[in-house]
Amino acid sequence: MNILPVALTPKRVLLIGAGSSAALKAENIYGSDCSLTIVAKEIKDIYFCDKEVIRDEFSFSYVKDCDVVINASADESLSQLLWENRKKYGFLLNCVDMPKYCDFYFQAVVKNHDLCVSVSTGGAAPKYAQFIRNLISAILPKHSKQFYEDIKTKRAQGDTNIYQDKGKVLLIGCGPGSADNLTLKALKALNSIDIAMVDSLVGKEITDLLPKNCIKIDVSKKKDCHKLLQEEINEMLLKCAKDGFCVGRLKGGDPAVFGRVFEEAVFLTENGVNVEMINGVSSVFAGCLAGGVTPTLRGFSAGALIVSAHLRESKFNDDWVELLRDFKYTMIVLMAYSFADKIAQKAEELGISLDTPAAFISKIDSDEQITIVGTLGKLSEMAKLCSKPAVLVIGKAVTEATRMPYSGKRVIL
Amino acid sequence: MNILPVALTPKRVLLIGAGSSAALKAENIYGSDCSLTIVAKEIKDIYFCDKEVIRDEFSFSYVKDCDVVINASADESLSQLLWENRKKYGFLLNCVDMPKYCDFYFQAVVKNHDLCVSVSTGGAAPKYAQFIRNLISAILPKHSKQFYEDIKTKRAQGDTNIYQDKGKVLLIGCGPGSADNLTLKALKALNSIDIAMVDSLVGKEITDLLPKNCIKIDVSKKKDCHKLLQEEINEMLLKCAKDGFCVGRLKGGDPAVFGRVFEEAVFLTENGVNVEMINGVSSVFAGCLAGGVTPTLRGFSAGALIVSAHLRESKFNDDWVELLRDFKYTMIVLMAYSFADKIAQKAEELGISLDTPAAFISKIDSDEQITIVGTLGKLSEMAKLCSKPAVLVIGKAVTEATRMPYSGKRVIL
Repeated sequence: MNILPVALTPKRVLLIGAGSSAALKAENIYGSDCSLTIVAKEIKDIYFCDKEVIRDEFSFSYVKDCDVVINASADESLSQLLWENRKKYGFLLNCVDMPKYCDFYFQAVVKNHDLCVSVSTGGAAPKYAQFIRNLISAILPKHSKQFYEDIKTKRAQGDTNIYQDKGKVLLIGCGPGSADNLTLKALKALNSIDIAMVDSLVGKEITDLLPKNCIKIDVSKKKDCHKLLQEEINEMLLKCAKDGFCVGRLKGGDPAVFGRVFEEAVFLTENGVNVEMINGVSSVFAGCLAGGVTPTLRGFSAGALIVSAHLRESKFNDDWVELLRDFKYTMIVLMAYSFADKIAQKAEELGISLDTPAAFISKIDSDEQITIVGTLGKLSEMAKLCSKPAVLVIGKAVTEATRMPYSGKRVIL
Repeated sequence: MNILPVALTPKRVLLIGAGSSAALKAENIYGSDCSLTIVAKEIKDIYFCDKEVIRDEFSFSYVKDCDVVINASADESLSQLLWENRKKYGFLLNCVDMPKYCDFYFQAVVKNHDLCVSVSTGGAAPKYAQFIRNLISAILPKHSKQFYEDIKTKRAQGDTNIYQDKGKVLLIGCGPGSADNLTLKALKALNSIDIAMVDSLVGKEITDLLPKNCIKIDVSKKKDCHKLLQEEINEMLLKCAKDGFCVGRLKGGDPAVFGRVFEEAVFLTENGVNVEMINGVSSVFAGCLAGGVTPTLRGFSAGALIVSAHLRESKFNDDWVELLRDFKYTMIVLMAYSFADKIAQKAEELGISLDTPAAFISKIDSDEQITIVGTLGKLSEMAKLCSKPAVLVIGKAVTEATRMPYSGKRVIL
């Protein structure tokens, strides 16, 4: 499709016609601050009641000094006449709904002061272009006019790095994996950082969104292979912020859930660095819905307890297992995959029913997402059918998962 | 700023120059499928090594049949010559970095087959335009070429309603309140529905994003004033889906957390309706970070138990209060605000220390957001300082909140 999206800088625009399609074009032109002349035999749309319209037949005298002419009159012979004479008079032509008489097409536009975003499908799918326009409208920062004035002033003074907070750390919850599960706030944050310190559970779709000139540092803490100690990460964050960079600390899921947000935020705050925390979709709940598990299912569970089976130095944490006896809630266990055998064993030792329903939801929010529904007694077998990372959900609410819609694959043992 | 964003439909473009700024323009033109002629005295950028470049001085013979001429040669006298002759030869002119010789500006562009989005700040803030371009790039659906071919085929057949799933229900987690805390998936879903059934905890910023022609139905279940029974909501969802509409069920926070997602999803699925569930940022965790509370803080809490103080028919649920005795976890209580007195009373009856740290985080993710840090014994006093909706967090981890950054207002009792 040979369309070239550009921003025209016309001084004067001529609009022919005053019906409903002319109204749409007029609205578009008024938004652009160009001078607009309207010529029409009669006013057919209420929009033009309070506008200055020259009530006349078109003649080429009206074209003088016009860079752009829009024929919204539905008069095809006029369109042809304009098309044949446009080079002679030196104007660009758009004849509404007559693509063969168009030097350009209008686009679905979102405006915020100096910022202008336009969407086109080259006429292939105007409703879809409108859908995309609405999406974009939702994410655009709503800056004041002053924001743009300040940018112009700073640029005039030679300051080019003006869109970022400097010397700041953003703790960014990146959700369970896909870019689709990212929040708008996180998306904006990712696009404003100089340096990204990235955890292992952050999806590739997310890191692919980082700006080209953003420095990426992998600080993933893999079990039995600590790449960097928490203290080292803290020091790096502090140094980068003190050096004036805007640093993003990218964490999987929601940082409030076992995200070591306290260790980093308090260290930085107490060292005088400004910290902002951004929530994400929790992998805990993304896993539940993906597997069809409703953790707070009425009559089956009065709530959800979120724990981790993995403690500092790769130790197994089994404190929570004893709670499973007559437990009224749903137990959601992170980092449980590698301890599947040990969990089943501990439950047996404590005399907890091995028939207690349980499910692993593995590789959440990815193409390999799989749910294995079984029981505490079958945990080892269940683990063999999936891989980590996986969330383990235990409790009566799991039994009802089979009635629920789910995403990805699901195996019921 | 008088710029008019449009999609030009040039047949032939002439580019003068073969340096680095010419390379950027050439890249732009090649993306638009227009025919491109390049004339340059010498090749200055490696980009042009494998491109067809006419090694010559510019002359007007090259302008023949060109709709658009780009002077990227930095030769200002040539720019002036072109500007003076552009109407005579009938081309549009862009002279790089010389705005006074420009009929149009280029824009930061994102492309996906037929879809083309362009961003401009009219030259005011090009780096900011690039930032916005990157944001948009992240949210654009990555459709195949076939998607656009299918749209064209369907439109040719007169089918205009082609961007929506029909007869489907989307259970949409809308997060704690602000549009910024919405996920990209939820944003796309909101823009694709015909009918929205909206819960009371869904923020106004979210419902403002709904398409203009989307029908909004308030199904908020206010305490002591059930507007609609769950069964009635189920029947409405079913009827609308069966009638062929794409129905959005908008829920605050994450639907996996006390979102009645099971009741609706199972009813619809068992009645043959396709259901999709979309997670959101949970108000539980948004509240924690807003108030500076780390619910899974090492050494203070081994996890988080999420419960609700409100049961069917507005009854107070106090089953969870007894767990607070020697509790190793953080208790997060939803719908607790109205029961502040009763919770403190029950704790006292059970002999649970009234010094147990507690915090209300009220009006989460709004301008009125406020955190009240206190103890179980001070719950009544705390409730008086805020309003509902509010999340109640109880446990040792709350004591450390005072060291953490927070957002909104905070009062420490």
